[in-house]
Amino acid sequence: MATAVQTAVKYVYAFGKLGTDGHAGMRDLLGGKGANLAEMTRIGLPVPAGFTIATNVCTYYYAHDHTYPPELRDMVAEALARVEEEMGAKFGSTTNPLLLSCRSGARDSMPGMMDTVLNIGLNDQTVQALARQSRNERFAWDSYRRFVQMYGDVVLDMKPKSKEEHDPFEELLQRKKAKAGVKHDHELSAQQLQELVREFKQAIQEGTGKDFPDDPLEQLWGAIGAVFRSWMNDRAVVYRRTYGIPHEWGTAVNVQAMVFGNLGEDCATGVALTRDVALGTPGINGDYLINAQGEDVVAGIRTPKRIEETLEQDMPSAYRELVEIGQKLERHYKDVQDIEFTVQKGHVWMLQTRNAKRTGFAAVRIAVDLVNEGLITKEEALEARRIPADDLNQLLQPVFDRASKQQAVKAGRLLAKGVNAGPGAAVGRICFHASDAEVLWHKDNHVQLILVRRETSPEDLRGMKIAKGILTAFGGASSHAALVSRQMGKPCVVGCSDLEIDYRAGTVTVNGKVLCAGDVISIDGFTGEVFEGAVQDRPSEIVEVLLHKSLAPEKSELYQRYAQLMTWVDEFRRLRVRTNADEPGQAAEAIAFGAEGIGLCRTEHMFFERIDDFREMILAATVEARERALAKLLPYQRADFAGIFRVMQGRPVTIRLLDPPLHEFLPHHAPEQQALAERLGTTAEAIARRVQELHEFNPMLGHRGCRLGIVFPEITRMQARAIFEAACEVAREGVPVVPEVMIPLVAFPTEFANQEQIVRQTAAEVFAAQGMEVPYLVGTMIEVPRACVCAGQIAARAEFFSFGTNDLTQTTLGMSRDDYASYINYYREHDIVPNDPFQTIDRLGVGGLMQQAVTSGRQARADLKLGICGEHGGDPASVAFCHEIGLDYVSCSPFRVPVARLAAAQAAVAQKARK
Amino acid sequence: MATAVQTAVKYVYAFGKLGTDGHAGMRDLLGGKGANLAEMTRIGLPVPAGFTIATNVCTYYYAHDHTYPPELRDMVAEALARVEEEMGAKFGSTTNPLLLSCRSGARDSMPGMMDTVLNIGLNDQTVQALARQSRNERFAWDSYRRFVQMYGDVVLDMKPKSKEEHDPFEELLQRKKAKAGVKHDHELSAQQLQELVREFKQAIQEGTGKDFPDDPLEQLWGAIGAVFRSWMNDRAVVYRRTYGIPHEWGTAVNVQAMVFGNLGEDCATGVALTRDVALGTPGINGDYLINAQGEDVVAGIRTPKRIEETLEQDMPSAYRELVEIGQKLERHYKDVQDIEFTVQKGHVWMLQTRNAKRTGFAAVRIAVDLVNEGLITKEEALEARRIPADDLNQLLQPVFDRASKQQAVKAGRLLAKGVNAGPGAAVGRICFHASDAEVLWHKDNHVQLILVRRETSPEDLRGMKIAKGILTAFGGASSHAALVSRQMGKPCVVGCSDLEIDYRAGTVTVNGKVLCAGDVISIDGFTGEVFEGAVQDRPSEIVEVLLHKSLAPEKSELYQRYAQLMTWVDEFRRLRVRTNADEPGQAAEAIAFGAEGIGLCRTEHMFFERIDDFREMILAATVEARERALAKLLPYQRADFAGIFRVMQGRPVTIRLLDPPLHEFLPHHAPEQQALAERLGTTAEAIARRVQELHEFNPMLGHRGCRLGIVFPEITRMQARAIFEAACEVAREGVPVVPEVMIPLVAFPTEFANQEQIVRQTAAEVFAAQGMEVPYLVGTMIEVPRACVCAGQIAARAEFFSFGTNDLTQTTLGMSRDDYASYINYYREHDIVPNDPFQTIDRLGVGGLMQQAVTSGRQARADLKLGICGEHGGDPASVAFCHEIGLDYVSCSPFRVPVARLAAAQAAVAQKARK
Repeated sequence: MATAVQTAVKYVYAFGKLGTDGHAGMRDLLGGKGANLAEMTRIGLPVPAGFTIATNVCTYYYAHDHTYPPELRDMVAEALARVEEEMGAKFGSTTNPLLLSCRSGARDSMPGMMDTVLNIGLNDQTVQALARQSRNERFAWDSYRRFVQMYGDVVLDMKPKSKEEHDPFEELLQRKKAKAGVKHDHELSAQQLQELVREFKQAIQEGTGKDFPDDPLEQLWGAIGAVFRSWMNDRAVVYRRTYGIPHEWGTAVNVQAMVFGNLGEDCATGVALTRDVALGTPGINGDYLINAQGEDVVAGIRTPKRIEETLEQDMPSAYRELVEIGQKLERHYKDVQDIEFTVQKGHVWMLQTRNAKRTGFAAVRIAVDLVNEGLITKEEALEARRIPADDLNQLLQPVFDRASKQQAVKAGRLLAKGVNAGPGAAVGRICFHASDAEVLWHKDNHVQLILVRRETSPEDLRGMKIAKGILTAFGGASSHAALVSRQMGKPCVVGCSDLEIDYRAGTVTVNGKVLCAGDVISIDGFTGEVFEGAVQDRPSEIVEVLLHKSLAPEKSELYQRYAQLMTWVDEFRRLRVRTNADEPGQAAEAIAFGAEGIGLCRTEHMFFERIDDFREMILAATVEARERALAKLLPYQRADFAGIFRVMQGRPVTIRLLDPPLHEFLPHHAPEQQALAERLGTTAEAIARRVQELHEFNPMLGHRGCRLGIVFPEITRMQARAIFEAACEVAREGVPVVPEVMIPLVAFPTEFANQEQIVRQTAAEVFAAQGMEVPYLVGTMIEVPRACVCAGQIAARAEFFSFGTNDLTQTTLGMSRDDYASYINYYREHDIVPNDPFQTIDRLGVGGLMQQAVTSGRQARADLKLGICGEHGGDPASVAFCHEIGLDYVSCSPFRVPVARLAAAQAAVAQKARK
Repeated sequence: MATAVQTAVKYVYAFGKLGTDGHAGMRDLLGGKGANLAEMTRIGLPVPAGFTIATNVCTYYYAHDHTYPPELRDMVAEALARVEEEMGAKFGSTTNPLLLSCRSGARDSMPGMMDTVLNIGLNDQTVQALARQSRNERFAWDSYRRFVQMYGDVVLDMKPKSKEEHDPFEELLQRKKAKAGVKHDHELSAQQLQELVREFKQAIQEGTGKDFPDDPLEQLWGAIGAVFRSWMNDRAVVYRRTYGIPHEWGTAVNVQAMVFGNLGEDCATGVALTRDVALGTPGINGDYLINAQGEDVVAGIRTPKRIEETLEQDMPSAYRELVEIGQKLERHYKDVQDIEFTVQKGHVWMLQTRNAKRTGFAAVRIAVDLVNEGLITKEEALEARRIPADDLNQLLQPVFDRASKQQAVKAGRLLAKGVNAGPGAAVGRICFHASDAEVLWHKDNHVQLILVRRETSPEDLRGMKIAKGILTAFGGASSHAALVSRQMGKPCVVGCSDLEIDYRAGTVTVNGKVLCAGDVISIDGFTGEVFEGAVQDRPSEIVEVLLHKSLAPEKSELYQRYAQLMTWVDEFRRLRVRTNADEPGQAAEAIAFGAEGIGLCRTEHMFFERIDDFREMILAATVEARERALAKLLPYQRADFAGIFRVMQGRPVTIRLLDPPLHEFLPHHAPEQQALAERLGTTAEAIARRVQELHEFNPMLGHRGCRLGIVFPEITRMQARAIFEAACEVAREGVPVVPEVMIPLVAFPTEFANQEQIVRQTAAEVFAAQGMEVPYLVGTMIEVPRACVCAGQIAARAEFFSFGTNDLTQTTLGMSRDDYASYINYYREHDIVPNDPFQTIDRLGVGGLMQQAVTSGRQARADLKLGICGEHGGDPASVAFCHEIGLDYVSCSPFRVPVARLAAAQAAVAQKARK
């Protein structure tokens, strides 16, 4: 029989030698950090004992007006007793005190977004015991000083809210150092630190009106509450929105016995990566600081030493231990690990491990290497969590041109060299503050900025998103700037210590040269180089191999791994990938990137090239005059189609008949109208009048798409004739041709029938005249909701559907893409929409209609071909949706084809995994 | 066992004393005329024997490239033999010839739209026999002359295609009369008619290159083919489109023994109505012509005599017989009958009966009278076929003001008096040709025209639709002009013989006064009066009783019957009817017309009245400045709401929060911008810039609806405050108040939640401050497809849905209402759309989405209130749809409320009938 006790919820999970309640599979409940602390304990790694307060407490906390479950206090007390037992020390003891850390830990890592408190348990009594035990009075008071400062900042909310506010603790610290005549914190004496503690407490009393809490348990609960509160702070909310993490998940809180990297020169703290996460090269690497506490490394204030360079010399046994732990963790987790560790008196303690975040470059190399090393399968290599499909795009982005770099060096424009923390090439204007970047971006969404800072912090997140590249004076490859840049796929150079940044003056000085905000610089994230002015870029190696053939495949390691990956991609994906291309050159590029056909060939671009004839057609007063003008356009259009058919070599080509409102093609200014009038032998007034007549209040919902071809059937006839004559011409050359004629903007089955009849009749006429036939399809673009609702009736005649999700999104949501800028940022920031519906398909609304169309379309015609040609076709989340609802293909711009292929494979792998 | 013979399709249905295959219930197969000829034969009325070739032959004919089923020829031969037997004459006999008529007959009457051929069977031999038998040589040759002319026009396609072409037969006829020195056709001698026949045949030979067919059977099949072909002629297609008759129905062909109204002075032909169909007064009435053939009456060329005036004197026994037949038919069909008859040698023959078409005035009176006479039930009276709901609108239209008419008479502006064929008052410019009306209408859709013609013909249909009123010089109450005008609900005066119309000069002369095309005249369809210039109108009697209280209800017979009908309407309807009203005056009118609440109170009209303050709000640079401007608007908005609440006396009031884009409220021209700048203490440039910023490419899909209230929550707060403060104020006066706050343009459930929260919080604040509470609902307008798709999630919070079908149609179809004029006429005329989707709900598309929303909305919330507030709410077909999908109410403009009530009752009655 279930009793209340038996069914009580478990809120606290211990880890330690005396027993571990959790494991790596419990991320949802314990958060990533908590689950991995438990897992590391289980596999025998050295982890300080502790316990995790689970995410269900966070949920409870927010659902119950910031209070805890009543039973939590007893559970924490019990877990704490076990930590005391294992560590052989007592929390609050004045003889043998246990100190605790309190850290956040969400299901997905959110580095630096939430709060941490270290050294909990120190007060005027316990600090004495710590000094006695460690035989290091300075360490004890330094720990106490750090604790009071951190507690004041985090728990008592005394951290300055903006860069204008002063930080009372930093001010006191600076004043103390000045008075002592020293430069660095560690030069302060125990006595001076003791004074600082008193001054800090005084500042807290003045700032909050309350005394600093001396009771260790009160300190602990204060810290726990602060961590839970930090789940909802502004930067955490922005981060979750950026990376699509639901607010409902909540964070866990990890309480753990302190170990100390600041007990002396045989102590250290560091962050290690089991492989390089910028480019993916093998070997442990990372940052460490001797005689320091963990937060010092991530904060990027002191430039740390490199593990791969000096740790073996500094601490040989600790280094060996770390390498072994790293290998064990990689084998255990089957992925590159991002490790936090502390060396206390030569002994390594593990504080965290997690799968490392990495750039697109590293993601591809690591995934391919892990397969080649036999650690993972090809299917595992393709998982979206290992290579976010979008990140593949980084490999195709331009890099700096070597010759242009050499010129810049010769011209003395190489300013400095830092740590190459995020690969890529970025050129932009210097901007010193994230908030300035936001202001500039709101004025111009295309602004090109390089964010230049001493170091970055979570407050800078929005500005970093806007910047094209990040450059910092301090910090290493594990600094906040490096971590976040890599995650965003942005070029980044850190630890560029030659930079002297003066925020107040708005200048950065490098070896005597002064640059101001707004000056252009170039940063090379592959090499760490920083240049004054712009450096020319050139295509990436993959583009050189595939498109320009200017590099032999075997010469490029990057290409080799890319090619290996894409072989697996094509092995697993079910969705075909086409491209949106209007001309032979684009089509050829797309084929090189793996496109299997053209999903959208717009015909209006061709008209812009013959604009005068097209305008004559629009302005024609009679059908005859219109047909005369169309006859002039026919040979050009036919030649365009023939060019595309030749390049496509038998791959299907979907050609959309004329779609935009005629208004778009006419000149709107008097001088152009005058010129056109002279050319056509009419008056400028007549043209102005026609422009006026064609003006529409809502052109998006206007006289366009098949409505043009219906009212002016001669346009459809000309276009169909051009398509089929071109098809015959190319087929006669021995090249197979598969035209798919697409009728745009169909809402009524009768519209489709009308246009289909013209197309089929024209085809028959052309075939009769040419004495040959070419297979072809006639289908439609599904881009208004009505087409989805009556898809069954349309499919009775249409042989394919191509979802035009740009317009389908506009009509389904009643949201004009040209006008939504005025509120979409507000919508995103206030969680009205989960993401930009023009970037990622709105699954519920637009997706719901697509699902209806697929179901009833296939019911009416079992072999109905289904695709998508809106820009969503290159968005991984949207590609996954297209896979799920059973489309046959997606179509996207040529450079997005590799991303779409990978996303398609990932969708297939994910579906298989779910089954 | 079924054999081929047993299952063979029956194509020909006989009627006559020897056996009748059909009956009145077989309209679908036999057409209206055929079914009723069979029915009249069955109930013993005198009908010349004949047979009907069913509509399935028409279907076959169009599906098989204008050919007939092979077995048809034998079936016709068999039926013809039976007619010969019954009539005791033989088709083609040179001693005792049978003559035949051949008439179209569709399921629904399409008067004059298709073709007829009379006197089939005449040739140079049979005409002699006819002369001998009738002992009337002139009659025989006149019949022959008519036959050749009609056959030439209809079967041999020699009818002129436009008014520019000359009619060879008419020309020959005119020349013959001139040569003979006579004015009328009937003054021509047998000899002259014989010459005419020869000349007609000659003209046919010249015009078609073929001889006129002498073989009676060839003549018959030619006539049958012509009738089937005429189903697809231009005017028939237009007619069907206008009245929503499907093209698939097809027509039947009725072949019937000829009887002759032109055998002498004891012969006549006529059209009778069993009650007056203009105003509904009881008693047989109609037109007849002595010694004439049937088509002469309908064509309106000779002004006929009135049955109710002179037939009793002219032919006492025939009159008595006709009255008896009329009464028998009314009792049999339970409706007013429209009869075609021929008197041959004093004996009445029935050629057709059908339910009479009637004006809205007559429809109401007849339906009410038939109930009071015990002929039909109240439910039957409400059937849509008896009173098309739209026609009720005629009773509310203005009539001419008596004083203004008297002034016009005194001023000598009364031009003439004709037959009052279609009630109503019309003022407009003279237009002589239907095609001119079309041209003028294409230039200006609001053009006010009176079509003035000698007579009208089916070719004039489009022009008649455009004209505000119809005036003819010839024809009676059964003429084409009269029939069609009544059906269209247009004021019409016919047979106004004082008019001398000169089409060539473009003038009409009345008693010496010459008016030209473009001159303004006024016609009174109640009295038949025609005035020069404009006569003032005044409200209809119903409006005087209900709105102006300027007429006592008992003084108006029209009102009495209206009131009786509306009592039944309210007894049977399930749908509630609300109104769209923004101010107390409109609301009061709507209540007088029976509105049960306000379904849409727009709040933006109120802002236009305080436009300066509103502009200040829009131009505010900060939230504080915006709130200051809003505070100025609050008291006015509150007063507006209070005024409406007071009028509505506890009926529900749905108030829509601000909806249109802000751009609409700003001045767009420099002088206004300058004036506003001075008022607000800013620069004209600043205002111009803001106008520019707010400009949208597709405002319909722009920053409007709840998107305004979300980005500017202070606007929603002010509006909610105004609503609830007004509600408290009025409730405190003892008037019950039921506000329903409607959030516009919701696409995402989060949008609704955001605005709902503001509204509920504001309500709570107001109620707390006022120390009282008022019940209220918060709901949403469903006007974008996404809202339909995720209606379930929205209904989790929303307490009501109101379908905004204007915008829902725009977004579902991707069709801008402001821009669709450029192609919708083409779409209608080419059957791309069955009707204008902004007038009648697109059942499949928009309706399909509405159905989804209703189903999932009610699943989420069983008591979800559902209504419609788009303009479809006043369209009968759309009201029927709303009834079918289970909405709770429709809402429409005040003057449409009676129509909507009737339509709602009709939908309920129809549904009950289907069960």
